[in-house]
Amino acid sequence: MKLLRVGAPGAEKPAVLDDGGVIRDVSGVVPDFAGQGVSLEALDAIRALDLSAMPELSADERVGACLASVPNFFCIGLNYAKHAAETGAEPPKEPIVFNKATSALSGPFDPVVIPRGSEKTDWEVELGVVIGRETLYVSEADALDYVAGYCVINDMSERAFQIERGGQWIKGKSAPTFGPCGPYLVTADEVGDPQALKLSLDLNGKTVQDSDTSDMIFGVAEIVSYLSKFMKLMPGDIIADGHARRAWAWA
Amino acid sequence: MKLLRVGAPGAEKPAVLDDGGVIRDVSGVVPDFAGQGVSLEALDAIRALDLSAMPELSADERVGACLASVPNFFCIGLNYAKHAAETGAEPPKEPIVFNKATSALSGPFDPVVIPRGSEKTDWEVELGVVIGRETLYVSEADALDYVAGYCVINDMSERAFQIERGGQWIKGKSAPTFGPCGPYLVTADEVGDPQALKLSLDLNGKTVQDSDTSDMIFGVAEIVSYLSKFMKLMPGDIIADGHARRAWAWA
Repeated sequence: MKLLRVGAPGAEKPAVLDDGGVIRDVSGVVPDFAGQGVSLEALDAIRALDLSAMPELSADERVGACLASVPNFFCIGLNYAKHAAETGAEPPKEPIVFNKATSALSGPFDPVVIPRGSEKTDWEVELGVVIGRETLYVSEADALDYVAGYCVINDMSERAFQIERGGQWIKGKSAPTFGPCGPYLVTADEVGDPQALKLSLDLNGKTVQDSDTSDMIFGVAEIVSYLSKFMKLMPGDIIADGHARRAWAWA
Repeated sequence: MKLLRVGAPGAEKPAVLDDGGVIRDVSGVVPDFAGQGVSLEALDAIRALDLSAMPELSADERVGACLASVPNFFCIGLNYAKHAAETGAEPPKEPIVFNKATSALSGPFDPVVIPRGSEKTDWEVELGVVIGRETLYVSEADALDYVAGYCVINDMSERAFQIERGGQWIKGKSAPTFGPCGPYLVTADEVGDPQALKLSLDLNGKTVQDSDTSDMIFGVAEIVSYLSKFMKLMPGDIIADGHARRAWAWA
């Protein structure tokens, strides 16, 4: 299934894109896509609906973030082998984990607001992994059973805030609108192998990122298992899978 | 007011400690203390209640975290001048910001579960600041107007996970039960000056931390203002004000 949320900011309705490409309003049966609303059980309940009986929504409406809110917006750093090689950076031995303030979440087509004092606002397309079931200490072999689905994330950064202001990266990752997310939350059953997905980003019509999740140093199952050794993952948590590209950003 | 939550884990009721020391159940009028439930408006509504008409709860019940959940669990690092001096560490020029996974939140008297593989689980008493109103770019002069109240936090860490496992501190700060919080959320009007509070921690009957919030390098107003330059703070966000003590932990 492809889940999405349509409507004005703060008033989005949860919806499903049906097989005919029609957006079906499921707000009558699901409160919203967030937390338990994207648990594996909730997704099964949506799957069982007769979508043709659900009200149709206009394709002209704004599409919001595919999740209404997130308990945690985790990110993995420097996770693409090719790009790590390009920058000359030593690939990390273990996943680098950081996060965004949850208020950074925004719609996939909403304007990004550059924060005051910014000199180095920057973009980065990433695969977002959405957790569907609470988990702690899950094995790599079982980890994908805890994934609700996937979405596209633009991991916006302010590199000076991130690197030059002392301490931890969160300062440069958390401005409002620094977490565009969506348009779709695609359920795991529809995605299949998460390590065989193309990801690209265009900047003013020019392709500036073009990669493949097969190039991830730590794959999705490994990341989920690894994180679960340090913290309890909750339904609706996002994990942005990490990317790296420009040498200057990490100088 | 002193707000608290009493009952079995996951089934706590929001309550108020009245002037006579009686715990009054306000679950009939407030859904829970979390997010908008601790907004300044929500606190005003609770303040207007006739507490004597609210059901009494037993003082023998378990006390849970004073917040049911948090949108963000922010922390400030190395923020006490005396202790920074003791460790020989250079005091930070700007606040060091990091955070815990929100699933780390736990009751103030609940057992702390040491995570698998831990060698350096560690404690740290801190003042918790709870945000009461959404804010971005607030001045230091106005910052305290956005604070709902204060609570005691034990900023538990696994120092090896934090420091020796690559990258960012979140790995060592986020295990379940690593965020004991409470027993009370004391509203800002009752606390008065947040820079004149004693904080101490006993370990097996021996006092191992004994300090005063006047020793904070960056005060509460400065921290709230500073954070709001990098991210939108939301009602119910916690900011643990930071502490540092043992040289080995930062070696």
